[in-house]
Amino acid sequence: MDEKLDFSCDYLEGAHENILKRLVETNGLKMGTYGDDSASESARDRIRKACECPGATVQFLIGGTQTNTVVIDALLESYQGVLGATSAHVNVREAGAIEADGHKFLSLEQHNGKIDAQEIEKYLNNYEEDSYREHLIMPGMVYISQPTEYGTLYSKAELTAISEVCHKHHIYLYVDGARMAYALGSEQNDVTLPDMAKLCDAFYIGGTKCGALCGEAVVVPDPKTIPHFITVIKQHGALEAKGRLLGIQFDELFKDNLYETIGKNAVDMAQQIKAALKAKGYQLLADSPTNQIYFVMDEAQMEKLSQHVKFSVWEKYDDTHTIARFSTSWASKKEDVDQLISWL
Amino acid sequence: MDEKLDFSCDYLEGAHENILKRLVETNGLKMGTYGDDSASESARDRIRKACECPGATVQFLIGGTQTNTVVIDALLESYQGVLGATSAHVNVREAGAIEADGHKFLSLEQHNGKIDAQEIEKYLNNYEEDSYREHLIMPGMVYISQPTEYGTLYSKAELTAISEVCHKHHIYLYVDGARMAYALGSEQNDVTLPDMAKLCDAFYIGGTKCGALCGEAVVVPDPKTIPHFITVIKQHGALEAKGRLLGIQFDELFKDNLYETIGKNAVDMAQQIKAALKAKGYQLLADSPTNQIYFVMDEAQMEKLSQHVKFSVWEKYDDTHTIARFSTSWASKKEDVDQLISWL
Amino acid sequence: MDEKLDFSCDYLEGAHENILKRLVETNGLKMGTYGDDSASESARDRIRKACECPGATVQFLIGGTQTNTVVIDALLESYQGVLGATSAHVNVREAGAIEADGHKFLSLEQHNGKIDAQEIEKYLNNYEEDSYREHLIMPGMVYISQPTEYGTLYSKAELTAISEVCHKHHIYLYVDGARMAYALGSEQNDVTLPDMAKLCDAFYIGGTKCGALCGEAVVVPDPKTIPHFITVIKQHGALEAKGRLLGIQFDELFKDNLYETIGKNAVDMAQQIKAALKAKGYQLLADSPTNQIYFVMDEAQMEKLSQHVKFSVWEKYDDTHTIARFSTSWASKKEDVDQLISWL
Amino acid sequence: MDEKLDFSCDYLEGAHENILKRLVETNGLKMGTYGDDSASESARDRIRKACECPGATVQFLIGGTQTNTVVIDALLESYQGVLGATSAHVNVREAGAIEADGHKFLSLEQHNGKIDAQEIEKYLNNYEEDSYREHLIMPGMVYISQPTEYGTLYSKAELTAISEVCHKHHIYLYVDGARMAYALGSEQNDVTLPDMAKLCDAFYIGGTKCGALCGEAVVVPDPKTIPHFITVIKQHGALEAKGRLLGIQFDELFKDNLYETIGKNAVDMAQQIKAALKAKGYQLLADSPTNQIYFVMDEAQMEKLSQHVKFSVWEKYDDTHTIARFSTSWASKKEDVDQLISWL
Repeated sequence: MDEKLDFSCDYLEGAHENILKRLVETNGLKMGTYGDDSASESARDRIRKACECPGATVQFLIGGTQTNTVVIDALLESYQGVLGATSAHVNVREAGAIEADGHKFLSLEQHNGKIDAQEIEKYLNNYEEDSYREHLIMPGMVYISQPTEYGTLYSKAELTAISEVCHKHHIYLYVDGARMAYALGSEQNDVTLPDMAKLCDAFYIGGTKCGALCGEAVVVPDPKTIPHFITVIKQHGALEAKGRLLGIQFDELFKDNLYETIGKNAVDMAQQIKAALKAKGYQLLADSPTNQIYFVMDEAQMEKLSQHVKFSVWEKYDDTHTIARFSTSWASKKEDVDQLISWL
Repeated sequence: MDEKLDFSCDYLEGAHENILKRLVETNGLKMGTYGDDSASESARDRIRKACECPGATVQFLIGGTQTNTVVIDALLESYQGVLGATSAHVNVREAGAIEADGHKFLSLEQHNGKIDAQEIEKYLNNYEEDSYREHLIMPGMVYISQPTEYGTLYSKAELTAISEVCHKHHIYLYVDGARMAYALGSEQNDVTLPDMAKLCDAFYIGGTKCGALCGEAVVVPDPKTIPHFITVIKQHGALEAKGRLLGIQFDELFKDNLYETIGKNAVDMAQQIKAALKAKGYQLLADSPTNQIYFVMDEAQMEKLSQHVKFSVWEKYDDTHTIARFSTSWASKKEDVDQLISWL
Repeated sequence: MDEKLDFSCDYLEGAHENILKRLVETNGLKMGTYGDDSASESARDRIRKACECPGATVQFLIGGTQTNTVVIDALLESYQGVLGATSAHVNVREAGAIEADGHKFLSLEQHNGKIDAQEIEKYLNNYEEDSYREHLIMPGMVYISQPTEYGTLYSKAELTAISEVCHKHHIYLYVDGARMAYALGSEQNDVTLPDMAKLCDAFYIGGTKCGALCGEAVVVPDPKTIPHFITVIKQHGALEAKGRLLGIQFDELFKDNLYETIGKNAVDMAQQIKAALKAKGYQLLADSPTNQIYFVMDEAQMEKLSQHVKFSVWEKYDDTHTIARFSTSWASKKEDVDQLISWL
Repeated sequence: MDEKLDFSCDYLEGAHENILKRLVETNGLKMGTYGDDSASESARDRIRKACECPGATVQFLIGGTQTNTVVIDALLESYQGVLGATSAHVNVREAGAIEADGHKFLSLEQHNGKIDAQEIEKYLNNYEEDSYREHLIMPGMVYISQPTEYGTLYSKAELTAISEVCHKHHIYLYVDGARMAYALGSEQNDVTLPDMAKLCDAFYIGGTKCGALCGEAVVVPDPKTIPHFITVIKQHGALEAKGRLLGIQFDELFKDNLYETIGKNAVDMAQQIKAALKAKGYQLLADSPTNQIYFVMDEAQMEKLSQHVKFSVWEKYDDTHTIARFSTSWASKKEDVDQLISWL
């Protein structure tokens, strides 16, 4: 058979088998609606425990863009904007969703997908010292993602520094964790979920790209941060009527450490691919320690590789080279990875 | 055992067994993302056939409020509003979602949950004749639901009249079909899906309340009506990454007429409940021919009934009476209905 | 000459002569921008004194719709709506401006243009008791106008009752005073500016319809009610670069009680017209004690009158009668009023 | 006397004397409202003639941010964004007003305040070729200003090239002419108003900074470009009730070529200042041919100069130097300019 291997992204398969099994088992039960069901309650408790944050608000939403839009709109006043990396997903790949809610994105230079605490502070100082600051968009929060768009990770020291700058200047810190499993599963990672809960005002734990059919879990360590959250969610068309669909999935993902186990497997395989790329002399774009590996190819290499494998074409590197990406996922198989490596 | 029977709404269970079976069977397959997958393509084709509208755009979204918000925002200019019944779901139960997108709701009197073509026309004439109409919100569309909030149905003649008024005045007609299966499954119904496709500019076929875990299918008979629809969907955070989840469900629902069969079963049981209520002298609120039955109880009746059964409390009828609702669904069981009737 | 008398509205002339005189005198002076000028500072002080509220924030905006939009958006959270009379200007005559900012208008029945404290409380109680209130738009404020759309006045007792209900339920009270001079100038009025400052969370004192070329003065008795107000104003495109234009006008209007004097003159003449209408047997729509007089005419009367006079046609009263309005203003002349009366 | 000279901006004085004279003369006349008055009609005609565009829609608004917000919102679909220079006024100095209407700003590199037709085309090509373009914000227009934020001018060749790129890619070109008089009054300028009307889809002719108390004249060469413009204006709270205030001002500014004459005077004086700065060895930021002159000072120079003169501090040039700006205006006096030069 000649079907191509597919390493183009991390949401190509359905869901982890435990999730499907549980959906089947519970299908006939009548359960509460709009998140008021036993599975969602159990999932919330497991997440609170995993975050060591028993008082946190946990809400389940459907997808990443939706979650960013809802949380950002919930955190900000109408006249406030979002500080983040030029390369941030909300800046470049979400069709202007946060602007559609009225919030301007304020770009900071990215360094391997990350922004720097000192540069954030410089921006905030400039804002505060500007004699016309009342004519400027007021920064109300910092948005980062863990891992970043380039698969890189913030260290605990970096995250702590950003958190301190934010709170010193009375703005929020929000972390987009669409691929959080692949941060938690990375050997290089030193930021735990309890760290997240301590350092951030809100963050989400991604399901769609980490083993679920759909779903993201928003964690708000201090419930007072977002009052009337359900109304905000409903107003954005993001309140799932059959909340059980989300609750069941996260209840399974947070049983017996499954979420982190899933992540580790994907990262291991991605790192094997990265090692092979390095060994064969490919240039890497950022030395990603997670499940997304960005690298540079010339046209001949690209044409050859694309006969066997699907990958993601990111952008032009120069006139004759292209940046491409391999993604592994919770569902990636060792034999496919070996096959891929043999073709590099 | 003392668990109560639950007739409080039509989204208490999971999904039709065919859907779960298909999710399990296809789980390991790598499929395209964002709706670009074979299951979604197949589902679109089945829906186009069911609507006898081969050129229609069909897009799958997650839930009802989301769908209303996205479609209404896609249909309207920024300065246009929505005409509909005072009792319309988008007016009273969606947390101001359409206003959050900038569109005012313009209320018309409801008659058993329906609005009247002549009253729509009177409103439009008044608008057009107002010498200060440029200071008014411009009506850009009519919103109705089939079945309505009260479970009632527009006849084909009524829908045709509304469609004619809308198109004479160059505004759109959009139908919210969150419970479309229970319209199609009603003996009293004479509006088919092909009629919908002929008379409306956009409508949706509800999944969440009609046998799916989640999902609504938007049908736009003439694709030119909504250009750049995917961008609009993405901007609202409503583009499902694993579109297969929606495609698979609607592909099953539209196989072998399952969607209508599901609806018929629910309606049959609701009509048995209605007949029993009538026989026992309860006052009905609207003589609903679908799966939602509204009726009036005094406090003693309500207290007694609520010991055994969950139902939905709608609003006060007068100082001593309350309007309540029983809903059946695709998953309602005959023995539960018989039990309920025995308690009335 | 045969030019018609014009009583169609209260903004037909330029500005009070004191204003023009001051504009001419100060024209060559270099003054601060964006409201940071000596005339605006002086005007703010005069208004604070007139309101007996030395700590109030006073900001000058250009027009009525703009002011309503900016203040309502400043007062509300993104998920909150505005309670007001069905006949409220923001509901019917402002092209959906508040909805364009995302805020739903929640209608209460009007009684001669006014809403009732008890009916407000009933609405708020229903909201708070609704088990699905998180799916509803949350009322965040009450909007009223003084005088109302029909020229009627809230008494101090009525305003106090509304204020108490609002604050008991933790929502704001905002008063649109586009024609405040004609309330203050009415013999029937018992609500002073200091009362306004005590009972309301924000209100505006209208200039455009009360002797200025343009301009409305927003008063926020407690500055903490609206933080970052200038940024909100700027974001709405409502921050006047040459703030002196507004400051000078209000500085003149609040010198030597001119604002109230202007109002009294207009009301006196309107009341003469009203007395004449009554004497000649016309039906009045609301027994307005201010500068707008609504009355009913049959077609013959209307045709005859419109040969000599311009008036405002409000709406149909019945198949053969129309509701019309005469407005006087600060600039109305006694001889014109006498002439008008002779033609009734 | 020791009052400082003030060259900090171009809106420090009132209005040109012809405007004040006309306001006084017409003050007692009853005129139509909301722009439906004889002065506004006359002004529209004069502007259409000056633009050699007899069919153009001309509407008068109050200020620059308001005008940008209204026109951009009127031109764009809800899912479209604005392409412009990083330094664009709408990007940096308008408090996120266009984002508040839902439109993302898409930054292009600025070159002396200008953007380049080829770089615009490269952006549009990249967008159109992106396989995920439906997930991106769709560029719907280009925003430029003439003169730019740095006082520089687009040549007719440059503007033509930009216009061609826009129209080839079916997006709009809009020009912010807040200081248009100072472009028209520059010897270096070769773009006339008729050129503007031929090359742009909408532009505005600034009044506030060019001799008026307030007011901007929006010109839409083809009225079909913005249907229901008055409703859009009203919805943004930007429809002036006493439209005469704006009509009178522009009627005077476009009588006997006054607008251009005013501009020439200001530019002449700015160029004298620029020549003096050059002669005395100051570094200029952009070699501005209009009324704003940006230059670099060290701290000692700045301290000394600020004892006598007010100027605008733009931003840090480096650790020991600052970028500052002198602005002249229609009202600048020769003796003040000479005095300023003597202090450099």
